[in-house]
Amino acid sequence: MLKIGLIGYGKAGQAVAGVLHDDPRFELCWIARRSGAPAELDIPVTTLDSASFGDWLDANPVDGIIDFSDVDSVHQYGEAVRQRGIMLVTAISGYPEATLDYIRDLGRNTRVLSSPNITLGINFLLLSSKILRRIAPFADVEIVEQHFRDKPEISGTARRIAEVLDVDRDHITSLRLGGIVGRHEVIFGFPYQTVRLIHDSIRREAFGTGAAFAMEQLARCEIGFHTLDELLLRVIRDELQEAAELTPPPAVRRDSSARAGRLPA
Amino acid sequence: MLKIGLIGYGKAGQAVAGVLHDDPRFELCWIARRSGAPAELDIPVTTLDSASFGDWLDANPVDGIIDFSDVDSVHQYGEAVRQRGIMLVTAISGYPEATLDYIRDLGRNTRVLSSPNITLGINFLLLSSKILRRIAPFADVEIVEQHFRDKPEISGTARRIAEVLDVDRDHITSLRLGGIVGRHEVIFGFPYQTVRLIHDSIRREAFGTGAAFAMEQLARCEIGFHTLDELLLRVIRDELQEAAELTPPPAVRRDSSARAGRLPA
Amino acid sequence: MLKIGLIGYGKAGQAVAGVLHDDPRFELCWIARRSGAPAELDIPVTTLDSASFGDWLDANPVDGIIDFSDVDSVHQYGEAVRQRGIMLVTAISGYPEATLDYIRDLGRNTRVLSSPNITLGINFLLLSSKILRRIAPFADVEIVEQHFRDKPEISGTARRIAEVLDVDRDHITSLRLGGIVGRHEVIFGFPYQTVRLIHDSIRREAFGTGAAFAMEQLARCEIGFHTLDELLLRVIRDELQEAAELTPPPAVRRDSSARAGRLPA
Amino acid sequence: MLKIGLIGYGKAGQAVAGVLHDDPRFELCWIARRSGAPAELDIPVTTLDSASFGDWLDANPVDGIIDFSDVDSVHQYGEAVRQRGIMLVTAISGYPEATLDYIRDLGRNTRVLSSPNITLGINFLLLSSKILRRIAPFADVEIVEQHFRDKPEISGTARRIAEVLDVDRDHITSLRLGGIVGRHEVIFGFPYQTVRLIHDSIRREAFGTGAAFAMEQLARCEIGFHTLDELLLRVIRDELQEAAELTPPPAVRRDSSARAGRLPA
Repeated sequence: MLKIGLIGYGKAGQAVAGVLHDDPRFELCWIARRSGAPAELDIPVTTLDSASFGDWLDANPVDGIIDFSDVDSVHQYGEAVRQRGIMLVTAISGYPEATLDYIRDLGRNTRVLSSPNITLGINFLLLSSKILRRIAPFADVEIVEQHFRDKPEISGTARRIAEVLDVDRDHITSLRLGGIVGRHEVIFGFPYQTVRLIHDSIRREAFGTGAAFAMEQLARCEIGFHTLDELLLRVIRDELQEAAELTPPPAVRRDSSARAGRLPA
Repeated sequence: MLKIGLIGYGKAGQAVAGVLHDDPRFELCWIARRSGAPAELDIPVTTLDSASFGDWLDANPVDGIIDFSDVDSVHQYGEAVRQRGIMLVTAISGYPEATLDYIRDLGRNTRVLSSPNITLGINFLLLSSKILRRIAPFADVEIVEQHFRDKPEISGTARRIAEVLDVDRDHITSLRLGGIVGRHEVIFGFPYQTVRLIHDSIRREAFGTGAAFAMEQLARCEIGFHTLDELLLRVIRDELQEAAELTPPPAVRRDSSARAGRLPA
Repeated sequence: MLKIGLIGYGKAGQAVAGVLHDDPRFELCWIARRSGAPAELDIPVTTLDSASFGDWLDANPVDGIIDFSDVDSVHQYGEAVRQRGIMLVTAISGYPEATLDYIRDLGRNTRVLSSPNITLGINFLLLSSKILRRIAPFADVEIVEQHFRDKPEISGTARRIAEVLDVDRDHITSLRLGGIVGRHEVIFGFPYQTVRLIHDSIRREAFGTGAAFAMEQLARCEIGFHTLDELLLRVIRDELQEAAELTPPPAVRRDSSARAGRLPA
Repeated sequence: MLKIGLIGYGKAGQAVAGVLHDDPRFELCWIARRSGAPAELDIPVTTLDSASFGDWLDANPVDGIIDFSDVDSVHQYGEAVRQRGIMLVTAISGYPEATLDYIRDLGRNTRVLSSPNITLGINFLLLSSKILRRIAPFADVEIVEQHFRDKPEISGTARRIAEVLDVDRDHITSLRLGGIVGRHEVIFGFPYQTVRLIHDSIRREAFGTGAAFAMEQLARCEIGFHTLDELLLRVIRDELQEAAELTPPPAVRRDSSARAGRLPA
């Protein structure tokens, strides 16, 4: 059972805390939040403060930290984590490039995973879209994302899909409709067939499942900087290897003499 | 440009003939059909007859043969193909096991590909479903296929998806509705998110695109028996290899001396 | 502003309370719940008890009551409501026939609305499906409902749709998948086109919006027993009337003499 | 059995001819086309020419004419139709206003129906969207249309839906993808639920089914200018009337004396 500390206790953080709390693979040991106010769960809460965070970690040791707070927090806890070799999964989107560089540098000393879209489903969507794009580069591609009325900007996930598929931003459509939690659809138009890959978010707790998956996989990695894409790739590569081993026995190499011998002239 | 002969000129065969005829990568040289009646395209037509088929091939040589006829035809042309090392793509579904054995045996002497679902989209659906199943074995899976009112049995494609995902037949739903050409949906239900993979057939010509892809890939294979799944796997494996090469430089291996040197004790 | 009392404070009741509390058309005055424990909202809470409920109503008068509790509650509050002419919206599904008779009888003395599917969207789905069925009786119909893994029985809404469309229960498909809140799809298959009507529930709060709509409409009705279907019908009839008035001026009736006079022979 | 003449024999016209030919309610008597070349069906073909069209009609009398040609044709056959009181269903989109005026004027002398979207499904979509918009004016609305890659402009149907719903053109999204025949989706976003109305075209023959429905309904109308919207409205009004008659007996009007008598004080 991995001991976990959670940083950030906003809407996403609260949902993640609930998932981790109920997952038998993890022990959620504490929560660090800006206000330091008590959490709904009966778990110690601290304020995130770079001066005292090392002491907190020594008194409340964990194997890994999951960050759902904001782009600034990592500067508060980064050195403490680095020195203690604690695993880090950060699910923050929108890090400035300099901060990303800092996080990559943490990967020189401990196992770090950074992903702005930590759900399994979205990462699968990214990967399988990429595969289909590779198989069928001639197909037309459109990305449609639907979210609640007040979401201001184009979804970061949709932008990431466009990037991965190397399609222009013009091919992203953003619809704002009532209370839709989050729907992403990638459509591939072929001359005589259509393929649709759709991801519907039901609740923020999906971040928790994704973070748990990421932490579990990260625990099997070497020290370094990782992404969820890459961890999924590894799982799939294993799958393909296995599939390859299940395919029929190696084909007979073309050999005119053998052929001549086996067949009637 | 590959020279192609087409066997079978029913509804699917006619659609495939049109696609091959318009594809600059191929020259459709002749059509073999039961009736021997002229085709709509201005192309020689012959009757399929085992006694004379070898002579036909010698007079009208091709690099590959595509079969959209029926389960019996392969016995008429198999030996002629085997002896001449002609490539074979057969898109027949429902071969008896003995016939499949015969076709696999043809793979000892020439390049053979057999696939009951020759469209690119369906084969992608199979593969990506399999990947998601592997990543998330805990997700619920349902397969829903929708076809025109008169389609009698459960779609072979849906059965194949169930087989590949190792889910029970109970999880296939077959709906018969008006004139739907063919829709397959695989739904993965997670606790807090849902993934839907949907394939819509628009027209039978999709078989032609798939057969063309299969023939083009087969031309790069060694002698042997192949499936479209496996050819796609190869494409994807290359993709993943390339992706792996694009990931950040290899992580620094954990090394306590290095770490001791770089960090304050 | 209508004064409202809410009966029932389970998951649905809590969601409804939140919606009513935030809706400027209503004042949520109190909640009656089995346990009598305080609610999350700062509102008086009472226990539902037939002996004392009349006194509670006199001390805490309301214009209408909304019931999201269970099939038994109406017997506790029914007579108190009847005697005071308080409006009643009950959103309970599964009433025994005798209880339904009792509720219909309340309609002799006050305005009552009973609907097992109180959301606007579902009631629209019912009505528009019925219209399409009437226009195109030859189309094939299938109903597909998808809910969270643990929902035990076929959705009552799906059964109601089948009833309204007069299609056999065989044409309902129930899929259980992860954490889907609730999805109902009615598919109409025509020979050359397909129509899909889809309702996705996002959160239980949808019940609150529906109850608010029902209460607002009920306030305009006469004393009697009503259903949400019927209230929507009224809205639509007004719409159609208006549409009819917008259509071009009345056509000239065929009249051979007029025609002879106007046209060249 | 209604005798029908068809004007126009392009892609849509050919599909419609096939449907009418197979429908036992109609006898397709002849086809008028620009080229005058023979049709695939064994039916007389004429060239459309205003000088001789009256004679053609007298020699080949019909009850109704269906026009799937172009915006100019009506000027060739209009007067001949007017003088003989022949019913007219025209399915042309994009008539200039002056031509529409001319067609409306034909309605002074005979039964005329004009509809740019003659399919049943699309007209149902228009009507039911309008109803939902009326019931729930606060819901967000988006219209998404998907068509084959080469379709140049925004679909006329999507523009018509926007017009009917009184939403801005900004809320139409047009996606161009491979060979999609035609898909229209109207999405209504509520705070806690989403409603999707989807129409998928499978083949052009859908125009034939719609034209047959329109002609059959038109035969029951009085002389005048009609639209398919309006004919559907009539069907629905009948439906609602019937539904109203099925609702429970009229509610008892509130009456304090009656109430006093029936209830304990």
